[in-house]
Amino acid sequence: MRKNGLLVVLSGPSGAGKGTVVKALLEQTPQIRLSVSATTRAPRQGESHGEHYFFLSREEFEKEIQGGGMLEYAQYCGKYYGTPKAPVRQWQGEGLDVLLEIEVQGGGQVKERCPDSVGIFLLPPSWEELERRLRGRGTEDEETIRERMETARQEIAGMDGYDYVVVNETVEETVRIIQSILVAEKQKFSRMKNIYEFWKGC
Amino acid sequence: MRKNGLLVVLSGPSGAGKGTVVKALLEQTPQIRLSVSATTRAPRQGESHGEHYFFLSREEFEKEIQGGGMLEYAQYCGKYYGTPKAPVRQWQGEGLDVLLEIEVQGGGQVKERCPDSVGIFLLPPSWEELERRLRGRGTEDEETIRERMETARQEIAGMDGYDYVVVNETVEETVRIIQSILVAEKQKFSRMKNIYEFWKGC
Repeated sequence: MRKNGLLVVLSGPSGAGKGTVVKALLEQTPQIRLSVSATTRAPRQGESHGEHYFFLSREEFEKEIQGGGMLEYAQYCGKYYGTPKAPVRQWQGEGLDVLLEIEVQGGGQVKERCPDSVGIFLLPPSWEELERRLRGRGTEDEETIRERMETARQEIAGMDGYDYVVVNETVEETVRIIQSILVAEKQKFSRMKNIYEFWKGC
Repeated sequence: MRKNGLLVVLSGPSGAGKGTVVKALLEQTPQIRLSVSATTRAPRQGESHGEHYFFLSREEFEKEIQGGGMLEYAQYCGKYYGTPKAPVRQWQGEGLDVLLEIEVQGGGQVKERCPDSVGIFLLPPSWEELERRLRGRGTEDEETIRERMETARQEIAGMDGYDYVVVNETVEETVRIIQSILVAEKQKFSRMKNIYEFWKGC
């Protein structure tokens, strides 16, 4: 009796360290796969179809939306971004956990469509650290920094739609916590109802 | 900002291996304490007050019940058994997780009074293994075995009041899973609301 893998959504403000955590989590957790997003923007140098993104035409993307083929989607700067449902379901069916690293807006759509998905919100250790990281990225002017901080503020306000909150003190500790969440989620009574029915029938 | 420890209820039919799991869990998890039950039955050879049980008179026990001092209680063979609230709350306040190894009837009372408690139901690997263990304990007659099986059946029917279900394949794996559940539970959004309020105010 193989069980479906979990659908896990990881969100958090830019500067929380999602990228580093996802990389370490994938390296250290054999049963997790990272979902590949679809987009209508053009590929950049070095990006390949199916690895960094599924590059779709506007028509293809909208056909997927209409056919219910997107777990979530949104438009940024006139381009579509979204999560194709088919590969996610395929992996889950193979018993693999699938990780979606998406923004709060998309996370809300996934929770609505898949109430048994697991939402994890990643926070930086402190507001000061967040600001330091957002500033430290380049030589942007104050206006750009302020915009980034405002976007982070908006993401953080969406934290209440998530099941778990993890403060990213160190990557090692955060990976260990997320792995524990995956182990625990699989033991939830709501996911064990077949076992309950089996034992009740004994 | 020290956080309260968790209140964890572990139940399961006789023969599921609760005793062995609890022993290993306590040895391997420094922040867990095992709650000591109170009873009105007489101490047996080698049992000491406060270690194996709190031995109370019937009057003392009923005074505790009336004062709301019992997290759960029941009568078996005319004697009271229950969980005194004060030591549990004290440990929780110190940031320690408190484990209650109690029956389904008591587990239901705890969940009702403390909805944020964590209920874990332990199952044996199979019905055949359960029967083997219940038979293997001594040289009881068939009638006694049948009664034990019937009691196990009733306990298992109460599984749906628990948050998590763990099949006790091996003690090592079960301890690892329960430790993961404790780690995950502490990251739940419902337990992180103070962090949410803090960040929203930034």
